Amino acid sequence: MIKVVIIGGGNVATHLADAFSKTNNVSLTQVYARNIEQIQHFKKFTSITNNIEQLKKADVYIIAVSDDAITEVSRKINLPDSIIAHTSGSVEMNAIKTNGSKGVFYLLQSFSKSKEVNFDTIPFCLEAENEKDLQLLETLAKTIGKNVYHINSEQRKRLHVAAVFVNNFTNHMYKIGADICNEHQVPFEVLQPLIKETAEKITKLNPEDAQTGPAKRNDQKTIQNHLALLNTEQQKIYKLITKSIQQNGEKL
Amino acid sequence: MIKVVIIGGGNVATHLADAFSKTNNVSLTQVYARNIEQIQHFKKFTSITNNIEQLKKADVYIIAVSDDAITEVSRKINLPDSIIAHTSGSVEMNAIKTNGSKGVFYLLQSFSKSKEVNFDTIPFCLEAENEKDLQLLETLAKTIGKNVYHINSEQRKRLHVAAVFVNNFTNHMYKIGADICNEHQVPFEVLQPLIKETAEKITKLNPEDAQTGPAKRNDQKTIQNHLALLNTEQQKIYKLITKSIQQNGEKL
Repeated sequence: MIKVVIIGGGNVATHLADAFSKTNNVSLTQVYARNIEQIQHFKKFTSITNNIEQLKKADVYIIAVSDDAITEVSRKINLPDSIIAHTSGSVEMNAIKTNGSKGVFYLLQSFSKSKEVNFDTIPFCLEAENEKDLQLLETLAKTIGKNVYHINSEQRKRLHVAAVFVNNFTNHMYKIGADICNEHQVPFEVLQPLIKETAEKITKLNPEDAQTGPAKRNDQKTIQNHLALLNTEQQKIYKLITKSIQQNGEKL
Repeated sequence: MIKVVIIGGGNVATHLADAFSKTNNVSLTQVYARNIEQIQHFKKFTSITNNIEQLKKADVYIIAVSDDAITEVSRKINLPDSIIAHTSGSVEMNAIKTNGSKGVFYLLQSFSKSKEVNFDTIPFCLEAENEKDLQLLETLAKTIGKNVYHINSEQRKRLHVAAVFVNNFTNHMYKIGADICNEHQVPFEVLQPLIKETAEKITKLNPEDAQTGPAKRNDQKTIQNHLALLNTEQQKIYKLITKSIQQNGEKL
């Protein structure tokens, strides 16, 4: 039985506390949040507190707070026999300041409070100071999830910026597509099957091989026709990404 | 019973001929391709030819050839009582030159020859010169599909450029994400659940409301950290899309 304390009242903290409270092999020892209102509903399952000085003893403390608060919070947890792990994609493990063992328990997914989380599909990106701790974090992750990766701080930084491209920037491509549709009274839903297909394709082909379209074919006639239909900002993006797709082709 | 002739031996032509050959309410009268080898397997179901002068009489001729060949092929089909429709996203209906009725039968999806097509999820974007023809094309589309839209030539041009953003440019975002992963020995599959989630999210939220991340939050510290990890080309794209996401925020 692994004893876990969750630190935080946000989306990640809440979903994790919720998941751990339902597994047999984990004892959710306590949930902490500065604002105790956020964690009232955990009262039924476990001890809750808003006093960081009164944390109970546990094997693993998961700090799911904002990036800037990680160091400060970790200083309060000085337990040499425990792992103190944060959940951030962009913060180094060594930002944790403690006498205990440091770790990272990063879930690569965007969470929203209202939406049910399917932990079976979420990659758990784990890091620890030694093999024993890594094994414990892995055992813990597997009580609620399936896909576990060992990702060090350097790799995680890169993964985080890669995630910005495939999530935020991709979403902005959808946004531009939706803008173009809206301007011309075309329902955006017409594009949704293509969006789904594009996302599914790269589970079977690598993205470079999956590429199609006028940029890849260097179909200048279509490219010029497209540019004539766009506003200045859209043109800048169209030109830059088209160029980038084509440079890529040359490297082959 | 609608009589259909399919003109072309490529992916779209093949998938359409295949689908029509299996429905009860359509008679696949003939398949034409310049290179008859491409359509040999339709011999079992229907007449095939590589002589454009020997097309049989039908209600609808679907010209699924390359954009540049549409006009030339359409000149060969002068049947006043038939609809002659092309399948291109980027060519105007009036590129068809015929004594017959003009139409468009555009399927907004990327096709590959080897991959089975699920027509139930594909949007059929239809255009015709009059309501009667539009109804006939709609009836025809619904024998094999479900999602039918009336999209005129101006709208279709815009839809085609929007599709480049949500398909080709999105795929390039995946490519950059994969490059970053590969350089640092992180398996790209770690990003795939996030990619899937991002694509699914916009079926429930519009892309503008679905946006998250450092650009949206104007989190300059993270943005600068990210830029320091990227090569020059990736930086250009990161900066431009970040700026575009933020300009968008201002308009709100």
